[in-house]
Amino acid sequence: MSSIAIAGAGLIGRSWAYVFARAGMDVRVWDPKPEVLDRLDADIRAMHEKAILHACAGADPQGLPGRIRACTRLEDALEGASLVQENGPEILEIKQALFADLDRLAQKETILASSSSALMASAFCSGLEGQARCLVGHPVNPPHLVPVVEISPMPETAPAVVEQAAALYRAAGQVPVKLHREMDGFVLNRLQAVVLAEALRLIAEGVVSPEGLDDTIRHGLGRRWAFMGPMETIHLNAPGGIPDYLERYGPTMARLADDAARGEAFSPEAARRAAEGFRTDDAEKIRARQEWRDGELAALDRHLRNRASHKIA
Amino acid sequence: MSSIAIAGAGLIGRSWAYVFARAGMDVRVWDPKPEVLDRLDADIRAMHEKAILHACAGADPQGLPGRIRACTRLEDALEGASLVQENGPEILEIKQALFADLDRLAQKETILASSSSALMASAFCSGLEGQARCLVGHPVNPPHLVPVVEISPMPETAPAVVEQAAALYRAAGQVPVKLHREMDGFVLNRLQAVVLAEALRLIAEGVVSPEGLDDTIRHGLGRRWAFMGPMETIHLNAPGGIPDYLERYGPTMARLADDAARGEAFSPEAARRAAEGFRTDDAEKIRARQEWRDGELAALDRHLRNRASHKIA
Repeated sequence: MSSIAIAGAGLIGRSWAYVFARAGMDVRVWDPKPEVLDRLDADIRAMHEKAILHACAGADPQGLPGRIRACTRLEDALEGASLVQENGPEILEIKQALFADLDRLAQKETILASSSSALMASAFCSGLEGQARCLVGHPVNPPHLVPVVEISPMPETAPAVVEQAAALYRAAGQVPVKLHREMDGFVLNRLQAVVLAEALRLIAEGVVSPEGLDDTIRHGLGRRWAFMGPMETIHLNAPGGIPDYLERYGPTMARLADDAARGEAFSPEAARRAAEGFRTDDAEKIRARQEWRDGELAALDRHLRNRASHKIA
Repeated sequence: MSSIAIAGAGLIGRSWAYVFARAGMDVRVWDPKPEVLDRLDADIRAMHEKAILHACAGADPQGLPGRIRACTRLEDALEGASLVQENGPEILEIKQALFADLDRLAQKETILASSSSALMASAFCSGLEGQARCLVGHPVNPPHLVPVVEISPMPETAPAVVEQAAALYRAAGQVPVKLHREMDGFVLNRLQAVVLAEALRLIAEGVVSPEGLDDTIRHGLGRRWAFMGPMETIHLNAPGGIPDYLERYGPTMARLADDAARGEAFSPEAARRAAEGFRTDDAEKIRARQEWRDGELAALDRHLRNRASHKIA
């Protein structure tokens, strides 16, 4: 069974530690702040309790916390690791320094993966001796409740490293998506950006309320996207599949896309309209709703895995 | 209990008939083609059998088919109806003629609703004596498996009619979303268009495969959108809710939206790339997958309704 190193034990780092330990892997966690490591065990146990409550604590809940160990020295965390998952701040200089350390200290076979969402691997790994083993493995927060991982290699990343990383994430129960070239925002945030732009515009123009916008997705489009995605959705919406759909509806969709909102939709005025039209929650209420969301994410994940394991077509 | 008229008994019309009958309402169905009415009973029974299999046949499955009756004369279908749901072809002249008939024949209290997705109510109801009772009630196909209905009034539609239509759809188990002004594509297809444009572009440029694109949504963004929608998603992704999120991430999202694909993404070349990268299914396989999809939609709807009925936050 693989051994995994976690570099940076904030919210995402701890969730990654949980993902790998839940799959039976040995996890060593390093963080530059001693106080973060001091409370690691308590933080993991709190996460674990919630995961047991949400029935997403894996096949061996008893043994899980024992598979995560704090290391005050980075080299100890890295020893024998198949992959290190880095979760430092999204600041270029910090990531550059950290990856220089990782490349110097990790065994040659260790894959160096960053959780970065804003920076591409080439921005902080170019020129490293081990650049061929570097890539971004971008999760959705928190990874122990949402399985997708975008794997974004840089041009110098070895194809075999991409495959090994994908296999490791898959063995940990995640769903790797391989990007074939670097792209600002990767795929996930590009898709989120266009939806948010158009949503903010429709709200700011008074076409629909924020709740109406959410209902349109969660009781409409989101129903198909939750288990098929947009491409299979259109594939099944015309007798001849994707080409047939695009021939029938492509011109209409093109007209709507041409007329869609751009970056200006993220104006302070639009933000004000959206916030005013939505519930006002204080920080405590938002934390309570985040707990609710996490429970729903876990329940939906169970539902979808259960359906997938019984599918016949 | 309300009585409903269905004008046009194709796939969508029959599914609408099923929605209202499932909720205990009396439904009368008219279609200009006698052969469509001749096979209505058999078509409804086939739909009903599948719905029973998918456990979405409502509280009184035995009585359901008996609540749907075919009418060869439009005036018979309309008699005493609270609402008529029109599902004719998306051809302007046909809808204009049909709404002129509906307005002439229906009692003054009957709401005249169109399932139109491409045409706005003002295009085919303007100038009718009863234009104040006309609107679009745009479903997702098929409405008996996906609950959202976009209610799009024209400027002359009476506000009380919008409220009555919303109440009727809600009583039928659907989720009405009120649009406050007419907009090409309404909300749902505008959001679908921007996602498809960016998806086709990322596939055509070789960034990601069609399956990878689908995985990014169904195992990533779609997990939140299926039960919260995009606005609550961002509301819970920053300690201070929507304004805090947009202040932190708005500039990045704006940059991605500015650089997003437009209508040109629906080119024949992009369609070819997307189709080549996806499974090739013949028409029979697509029909089998549609059956699978409908079962999954029903199961997901059960899951979400069940969770909603137990939610605490």
